Amino acid sequence: MLRRGFNMLKALEWENNRLKLIDQRKLPNKLEYFYCYNYKDVAYAIKEMVVRGAPAIGIAAAYGMALAELNNEDIIEAYNTLKNTRPTAVNLFWALDRCLRAYKEGRSILEEAIKIHKEDIEVCKKIGEMGERVIEDGDTILTHCNAGALATSMYGTALSVIRHAFYNGKKIKVIADETRPRLQGAKLTAFELSYENIPVKVIVDSSAGFLMQRGEIDKIIVGADRILKDGTVYNKIGTYSLAILAKYHNIPFYVTAPLSTFDIKSSEEEVKIEERDEREVAYIENIRIVPEGVRCINYAFDKTPPELITGIITEKGIFKPEEIEKKLL
Amino acid sequence: MLRRGFNMLKALEWENNRLKLIDQRKLPNKLEYFYCYNYKDVAYAIKEMVVRGAPAIGIAAAYGMALAELNNEDIIEAYNTLKNTRPTAVNLFWALDRCLRAYKEGRSILEEAIKIHKEDIEVCKKIGEMGERVIEDGDTILTHCNAGALATSMYGTALSVIRHAFYNGKKIKVIADETRPRLQGAKLTAFELSYENIPVKVIVDSSAGFLMQRGEIDKIIVGADRILKDGTVYNKIGTYSLAILAKYHNIPFYVTAPLSTFDIKSSEEEVKIEERDEREVAYIENIRIVPEGVRCINYAFDKTPPELITGIITEKGIFKPEEIEKKLL
Repeated sequence: MLRRGFNMLKALEWENNRLKLIDQRKLPNKLEYFYCYNYKDVAYAIKEMVVRGAPAIGIAAAYGMALAELNNEDIIEAYNTLKNTRPTAVNLFWALDRCLRAYKEGRSILEEAIKIHKEDIEVCKKIGEMGERVIEDGDTILTHCNAGALATSMYGTALSVIRHAFYNGKKIKVIADETRPRLQGAKLTAFELSYENIPVKVIVDSSAGFLMQRGEIDKIIVGADRILKDGTVYNKIGTYSLAILAKYHNIPFYVTAPLSTFDIKSSEEEVKIEERDEREVAYIENIRIVPEGVRCINYAFDKTPPELITGIITEKGIFKPEEIEKKLL
Repeated sequence: MLRRGFNMLKALEWENNRLKLIDQRKLPNKLEYFYCYNYKDVAYAIKEMVVRGAPAIGIAAAYGMALAELNNEDIIEAYNTLKNTRPTAVNLFWALDRCLRAYKEGRSILEEAIKIHKEDIEVCKKIGEMGERVIEDGDTILTHCNAGALATSMYGTALSVIRHAFYNGKKIKVIADETRPRLQGAKLTAFELSYENIPVKVIVDSSAGFLMQRGEIDKIIVGADRILKDGTVYNKIGTYSLAILAKYHNIPFYVTAPLSTFDIKSSEEEVKIEERDEREVAYIENIRIVPEGVRCINYAFDKTPPELITGIITEKGIFKPEEIEKKLL
């Protein structure tokens, strides 16, 4: 297991005209880097989840466009290839559109990508500052998947709130859902937090309800891959179930996201929920756990309606889902 | 993967004065048997989940007592050792008490164990016949863990209902929760059903809510490890969450159990919910998925209150939780 200084770990770095990614498929056992020299490398990295997390995907895609520019490749082709890597997280399209606009206006795509990257750091910090006020001393906070530093440029979104509370001296504990099938909670969230000595324990996803029944969860904070203007949230599979369980137990349920995660144009019908390869369910670490010939269903995301959400924490403040359209967009 | 005739597979067999168990830790990849020559072997098999499932544990324990009798070992010591293998499933205590009574009354423990075994086959068949009437043609049924042939003597409890519906010509589909941490849904339920060509697909536990939201689940049927007289159900971790999700989506939620699963004496405070080794969560197939040094929480069971349960299917019929005390016990 890794025991390097956490501050050395950055999901993405632009270095010597190439994009350096932590290969998140190898964590927590190995710290290996994946270097992207052209936009196709970046497309592969997004598709295969070398890099994952809505904000991080957006930044990576922007650098992919920058690589196409540096390599004198077809920018429109790069744009389309990167756009088709993953369908649900909207930050991807948002970042690509910003880069395309820069290109069309004759500005440097690389400069735009660096700007997107820097803005994300600032935005994630702000989300933590804004969100911290919902956390009380002594809280035990449940989180799902990884909405941490590894899902963004730095700080994270949900984990930025947790980090800010912790570093401001609040005695908090974190429970991380392991988050099948890809186990980002067990592998990434537990890794990030334990490294900084923020108390964290891992549970199987199906035990969240029982811990709520026992009074062992005070708040739930998750990230988001896309938020519609009515406050409907798309996030990692399992988020919707957690929101229902939270409602049943009267536990506040917060979603954290930068404004780049909001999709003001699309209706629910237009959002594609990614179905990933069944083998993500059928195999764990290359060992088949489902009998040969049996099929699996593998939706990567789910949809949480606004009535289940206590508040959405953004860099501009905390909003009720119904306030999004009027106050935020 | 195994492709032997399913009817050959029996979780338990009494053969040549020894107890022959399918080693369920090896399924679905290998069919290996585990032979018990004395009560300590049986205690080990129960503790380590070579055999699992409330009814099967009860039968195995009864044969453990019979082995102590055959080997001229201390019956009270055997009773106490077997009693302390696992704390939650009440069938264990029920079967042990029957054997102890036989012993005290000067009857053969082996004959009592064989009787318990035979009764279970009859009872599971009856549960299937009783429960089948709640299943409609075309239903998609969600189940959790394994309440199948492998958890009993034959037929199963929840899966007996499913088998009876299927063999009576109802076109049904089954969705099996994989059931972390031990994956009994993926490994055992999917195996049992697919072998008999009963349509089954596997999902990660956290996606059940999303499938309900999409209208893809018509009924939920699970087993039970203990049922109190007020209808409170103890079953595999994740059952409680499913019951809440079912309520939220107005989906009928049925529990199946033989009368031997009912505990008329205990109050909620007296029921011990087993916490198993954290390594069941931290490792999958001997590969560590949680960072070194990070703790896990591993409750094996949870508690579902009667108000979330549509009906309890027993060998005597289907009852509402509030009818249990008056009509059934």
